[in-house]
Amino acid sequence: MSYERDNVRRMTGYVYGEQPQDPGIVKLNTNESPYPPSPAVADAIRSFDAGTLRRYPPATADSFRRQVATRFGLSVDQVVVTNGGDEALRLAMTTFVDPGATFGTTEPGYSLCPVLANVQGCEVASAELTADWSLPDGFAAKMNAAGAKLTCLVNPHAPSGVLVDADTVAAVARELDGVLLVDEAYVDFVDPELRHDLTSLLADHDNLLLLRTLSKGHSLAGMRVGFLLGSTGLVGPILTKTRDSYNVDALAQVAAEAAFADRAYAERGWRAVQEERRRLTAGLVELGFAVPESQSNFVLAGVPPGVSARSLFMGLRERGIVVRHFDTPRLSNSLRITVGTASENDLLLTALGEITSSSRCNS
Amino acid sequence: MSYERDNVRRMTGYVYGEQPQDPGIVKLNTNESPYPPSPAVADAIRSFDAGTLRRYPPATADSFRRQVATRFGLSVDQVVVTNGGDEALRLAMTTFVDPGATFGTTEPGYSLCPVLANVQGCEVASAELTADWSLPDGFAAKMNAAGAKLTCLVNPHAPSGVLVDADTVAAVARELDGVLLVDEAYVDFVDPELRHDLTSLLADHDNLLLLRTLSKGHSLAGMRVGFLLGSTGLVGPILTKTRDSYNVDALAQVAAEAAFADRAYAERGWRAVQEERRRLTAGLVELGFAVPESQSNFVLAGVPPGVSARSLFMGLRERGIVVRHFDTPRLSNSLRITVGTASENDLLLTALGEITSSSRCNS
Repeated sequence: MSYERDNVRRMTGYVYGEQPQDPGIVKLNTNESPYPPSPAVADAIRSFDAGTLRRYPPATADSFRRQVATRFGLSVDQVVVTNGGDEALRLAMTTFVDPGATFGTTEPGYSLCPVLANVQGCEVASAELTADWSLPDGFAAKMNAAGAKLTCLVNPHAPSGVLVDADTVAAVARELDGVLLVDEAYVDFVDPELRHDLTSLLADHDNLLLLRTLSKGHSLAGMRVGFLLGSTGLVGPILTKTRDSYNVDALAQVAAEAAFADRAYAERGWRAVQEERRRLTAGLVELGFAVPESQSNFVLAGVPPGVSARSLFMGLRERGIVVRHFDTPRLSNSLRITVGTASENDLLLTALGEITSSSRCNS
Repeated sequence: MSYERDNVRRMTGYVYGEQPQDPGIVKLNTNESPYPPSPAVADAIRSFDAGTLRRYPPATADSFRRQVATRFGLSVDQVVVTNGGDEALRLAMTTFVDPGATFGTTEPGYSLCPVLANVQGCEVASAELTADWSLPDGFAAKMNAAGAKLTCLVNPHAPSGVLVDADTVAAVARELDGVLLVDEAYVDFVDPELRHDLTSLLADHDNLLLLRTLSKGHSLAGMRVGFLLGSTGLVGPILTKTRDSYNVDALAQVAAEAAFADRAYAERGWRAVQEERRRLTAGLVELGFAVPESQSNFVLAGVPPGVSARSLFMGLRERGIVVRHFDTPRLSNSLRITVGTASENDLLLTALGEITSSSRCNS
């Protein structure tokens, strides 16, 4: 006998990227930082008094919340800390979208979103991005027509890396009837010359939630810390009602504070990723790949004509290099490649050069 | 404008116990262990390579899962690790109870359960415990009549501390149409002479889920690690569909393994709690309190006639001793008191003696 809810029985779970344990693997598949977290994190963990773990952690991570609020010039009530960015997405779904109501997204978008919608028993309305990965005209109107209670944009977008600017986001927020969640998981990697900053929009848009994570830009994927920024009307019910009371453990809070405080260290990592992203993109273009301009810590590499992305993926895998291949109509001819260290990117480019030239000779 | 779902807007969040930061406070209000975790936990944290935090944690905590499965003689597929016991409860609700369907519980019960039911938009069917805190006759039939998809028993019960034996649990599981979740958060503190063990019921009851946590019996409340044991039909959908992919961080996994492996240390703590529980109970009875036999790490102390539990709570608070008082019809004349160290329990008994004798003189 099965006890699952019907929607759960019918659905498929989220497929996360492979996590090979072999340290020799060049792992460019899940957009992790190529650098360790700030040494301040190691210090904070080493000096943590394990005896205090017998007590519950600070329920709302107030010390870290204050730090975040100060950084962005917000009130503490506009910040809620979560067990990674994924929990923030789930909590937004739980809080704003009734079962049977509609969740809005883009296609392609973060593949976790439809999974969360299935768990919640929601409908999904998705709008196809344009050929250059921009939002289609009338995006907000389309979401409104579908009755979307919550619409999610990943920005910079995954898996293309393309950035939507603040004016466009503001226009979407203004026009939407429901909540707009902008998943800014990768925002730390945007070129500083663009002066991209959505936090300044929060004052004017009470339906806007910004999602941040320390997983990528602060090298803490293993620690599971993210947060949402928004109006108190959006943040309040998550903070006090729908969130598990002790959702972020004591050590994660301490590690997050240490990482976030060492901004200079984090920024050096972001600059290095930006530089390697330019070099990796140029190298891929030279090999014949089509690469949209990424503002993230990964690039989407459209394979040259006549080459199979799937066999490239397999060829790289055989050489100990793991990237991501999504077998969907829009993405099946591309590989999503995390920006690694200079030597990892060199290994990748060399391997891709060898595989593509040999596959061309064979064909 | 409000964007919350109606059920979220109408509900009240879970009220967790006060977490005073003053180290001088005698904190007997949230059933934490009076002892630090095993020294092996401190060692594991100190020797953890913080550089690895840039990577996602093992998604399903397989190393710890194997350890748990081995301990209980189960297959790995019968174990799912969660971000504390609270997440396990939430996931059971998410996985087995449709919005509008019914969740079953006892009154009193864990006050988080109706909150989770409200978030999910479920109905709550609750059955009043008998005067001696046992399950009422026909409990399962009553839950079946209410259509309960999931029924939760806290065992040992909170806040009474009273234990329901395995035969009774087996009978309830057999009779229930839906899933039976037994929240065994406090099971480590059951007197060993009782040879209480529900894991042996799992082979015969595919609708039985056992919830365990390392928060109490392994002094890891700050680390947020729990797990569910059950048939693969119950555990599978939680593991692969409704759970956030990376719900337990890398350090929490390592700490949990270290704590769980040092069983001898944990058992010494359980024995000490059992001994202090007997002494605390005897002391309270001597002061005129009515105390049901607790098999947990707390006792429910019914105040002597003519004494107000609320003013006792306040009087203790003034003396720097924090206990828990629930202002509900069944519990308003009682205090729930965590078993502390010998000296904490002495301070509590002395303070209670002073307050009750002075309040009697005044009246």
